[in-house]
Amino acid sequence: MKENIKGITVKKSEDFSEWYTQVIQKAELADYSDVKGFMVIRPNGYSIWENIQKNFDKAIKNLNVRNAYFPLLIPESFFKKELEHAQGFSPEVAWLERSNDESERLAIRPTSETIMYDSYSKWIRSWRDLPLRINQWCNIVRWETKTTRLFLRTREFLWQEGHCVYETRDECDKETLIYLNEYKRFCEEFLAIYVLEGKKTETEKFAGAYYTSSIEALMPDGKALQMATSHNLGQEFAKSFKIRYIGRDEKEYHPWQNSWGLSTRTIGALVMIHGDDKGLVLPPNIAENKVVIVPIIFKDRKEKVLSSTKKIEKELKKFNPILDDRESYSPGWKFSEWELKGIPIRIEIGPKDIEKKQVTVIRRDTSEKLYLKQNELSKKISIILKEIQSNLYNKSRDFTLRNIVEAKSLEELKRIINNKKIALASLCNSKKCEEVIKDKTGAKTLNIPFEQPENQGNCISCGKKSSYLVRIAKSY
Amino acid sequence: MKENIKGITVKKSEDFSEWYTQVIQKAELADYSDVKGFMVIRPNGYSIWENIQKNFDKAIKNLNVRNAYFPLLIPESFFKKELEHAQGFSPEVAWLERSNDESERLAIRPTSETIMYDSYSKWIRSWRDLPLRINQWCNIVRWETKTTRLFLRTREFLWQEGHCVYETRDECDKETLIYLNEYKRFCEEFLAIYVLEGKKTETEKFAGAYYTSSIEALMPDGKALQMATSHNLGQEFAKSFKIRYIGRDEKEYHPWQNSWGLSTRTIGALVMIHGDDKGLVLPPNIAENKVVIVPIIFKDRKEKVLSSTKKIEKELKKFNPILDDRESYSPGWKFSEWELKGIPIRIEIGPKDIEKKQVTVIRRDTSEKLYLKQNELSKKISIILKEIQSNLYNKSRDFTLRNIVEAKSLEELKRIINNKKIALASLCNSKKCEEVIKDKTGAKTLNIPFEQPENQGNCISCGKKSSYLVRIAKSY
Repeated sequence: MKENIKGITVKKSEDFSEWYTQVIQKAELADYSDVKGFMVIRPNGYSIWENIQKNFDKAIKNLNVRNAYFPLLIPESFFKKELEHAQGFSPEVAWLERSNDESERLAIRPTSETIMYDSYSKWIRSWRDLPLRINQWCNIVRWETKTTRLFLRTREFLWQEGHCVYETRDECDKETLIYLNEYKRFCEEFLAIYVLEGKKTETEKFAGAYYTSSIEALMPDGKALQMATSHNLGQEFAKSFKIRYIGRDEKEYHPWQNSWGLSTRTIGALVMIHGDDKGLVLPPNIAENKVVIVPIIFKDRKEKVLSSTKKIEKELKKFNPILDDRESYSPGWKFSEWELKGIPIRIEIGPKDIEKKQVTVIRRDTSEKLYLKQNELSKKISIILKEIQSNLYNKSRDFTLRNIVEAKSLEELKRIINNKKIALASLCNSKKCEEVIKDKTGAKTLNIPFEQPENQGNCISCGKKSSYLVRIAKSY
Repeated sequence: MKENIKGITVKKSEDFSEWYTQVIQKAELADYSDVKGFMVIRPNGYSIWENIQKNFDKAIKNLNVRNAYFPLLIPESFFKKELEHAQGFSPEVAWLERSNDESERLAIRPTSETIMYDSYSKWIRSWRDLPLRINQWCNIVRWETKTTRLFLRTREFLWQEGHCVYETRDECDKETLIYLNEYKRFCEEFLAIYVLEGKKTETEKFAGAYYTSSIEALMPDGKALQMATSHNLGQEFAKSFKIRYIGRDEKEYHPWQNSWGLSTRTIGALVMIHGDDKGLVLPPNIAENKVVIVPIIFKDRKEKVLSSTKKIEKELKKFNPILDDRESYSPGWKFSEWELKGIPIRIEIGPKDIEKKQVTVIRRDTSEKLYLKQNELSKKISIILKEIQSNLYNKSRDFTLRNIVEAKSLEELKRIINNKKIALASLCNSKKCEEVIKDKTGAKTLNIPFEQPENQGNCISCGKKSSYLVRIAKSY
């Protein structure tokens, strides 16, 4: 028996934080590194990221976005060009020791606006060069000082960052939301995670943005996690980086820009939302292997079982099945291992199944056991995978909707936050009232739903006429 | 007219270096960055890298390699564990300013052996955990001090690095060569580049390796470029990083390891080998868009030409065609642009073509003009693309083979190198004789062909019995 794989030793409902770390490590998604604050993404975890990349990349290529790659290092002077942006990021930046031939300090990118827009200013001349839509998949370093949490809070993470340039504000507004909607669709269809879309408050928006839109998801511990953001950057970066274009009227203009990103944090959300006491539960649409086949071998019927298993493996090729025919492990041990690793469907084939021309199928999400005829297996597996996918999504949606509660006062807000729910509350747009809320509840504003009632009432903090209903929760 | 795209102003045969830089920049493959020594890979260049990734990744996944991601930063102490390795890389390493909570200096990875093997030592326990085959696609920083050359010599580049662990030397030897052969097959089938495989001399092997194998390609200027390497690392790293496994006999062993890599440099080789005076020439198997369709529009027949063009675009979907129906550019201007950008096939459709139910097809590699019937277009395009691919490969192979000459003396060697060819010469395995050759010719050993004659003669430097016939050339 392999000794380093063991089941999860705590319940999700009892010690959520420990449960999370155990699932990540025991399902071999990621590991701590000897470098403080950094993580190793192991093949099981990286395959999830590859699937995220593959599917989201396809979506943005359909929107005429093209991929590129910009330098890892950013000169200090670039940061200083956009002041708000620089101030927002400066505490988190990792600097290089200066080498002999460098005239200024270089930082590892915490995000790439500045280095990309310096190039954009050379490439963009005329309205014919617009819209320019570029994305990059890369690593990012932000020098976190809080405790490391695998996938959720690490000094390096992987992400994509899209950076587009437009002639007009209208176009920019429109596409900023198109990318947000792509994120929402992606989270729902692939990650089976229900998300809440809206606009960030002025206090919470991206450093240097005109406005920030985001999608937020509720985790089982009552904390929200920002799944992706899409920023309309206005014209400020264009002004700072001297991006100009000659318009259709032959006059010179500053273009409008947006940027939008999604990172490996989403893998953390995936684990938290779908996992259970047995370990990881992968939504089929994002699982590398959708099926694992375990032959139940008895000495006298071994050949027959194995040949039948191989036949079924071939038939199920399109689900990229794992055939676990290792003889040094017992079936029970294998069942636990593949449950821990979250494979959506387990198929067992023993001598009795062969006699009956059937297989035993176990759903990872519900533990339901089914007996399927071998001659209709592939068709039925397709259907069950779809059911698992929508079951997981529906659970995430129902859980979220069930846990959004309106707060009419600070007292109510406190109670809602303490009960690990998302509050929906009226707020004015002052920085001060957001601070009051943070101080009193430990929670912060997530985002402002796009659809607002006609009358938003009064700010629950200062009592003045409110600007909007906003979602408030503790968050990652 | 867009003013920033212009043709190449020098001939490849007259000023190779300037020609190269112009092709890279004007075909918008890459650009210099304001950060000294760094480059921006633009969408046209990155799409080549994406195709390299997609196809090579598929090949290694078929060999049961899985992808992962390890930290960007490496603690100084890790470097010191494998001395030879540390000495080889220390001049090129970029260090981070020390932050308050770091106990030691951190370097940006120049390669990932040390950071990966630290994790391997925690993950590997038993022979059941072997072979372990992990690859990562990532960015690498090596602080070059020589002049920056886009794709060829930059302080940051992208690559893949495979790192495998085996029970026995035999397995390790065998797979080290399997990866080398994968590189060779990939270069030949996709990049249409003929390569010379062999083993590096002791002087030229990778810092810390037991031995290094490589594939080398001859560039049109007579210099060789190392396209990929595959190292058998022996057991030294395992010893330094305390990687041990319990064998089938219950005893403890150090495993054998290899590592192997291919980088964005190969894009530079692609440009140099296939490009011509009009610009880039892309091998069809690596081109994002294999076809560009240019409608020849006259005012009175516009609608008819456009609708016919769109029909053809649909039919040729699988070649991912660009339809260039911009009206602010003339056909002639468009022809030049797409030639510059290296699209393998251009299709022109004008009123006369429509009358004759044909299209005009121009091959990028030979400039040959063909008239194809519309009803057999897709089939014929497939055939022509294959012809272009093999034509480019054959040219690369013939050029290389024509330029390998045997050198029987140092004088002959000098002449061969001056004539911009690869020499094949007998050499003993002393470091001193390799230095003599470097001093006298400016060239260095590339690699030792795997197939050697029975009698290798005497070393052309010292006259003693030679150890092998080895390839020698100036190199990038």
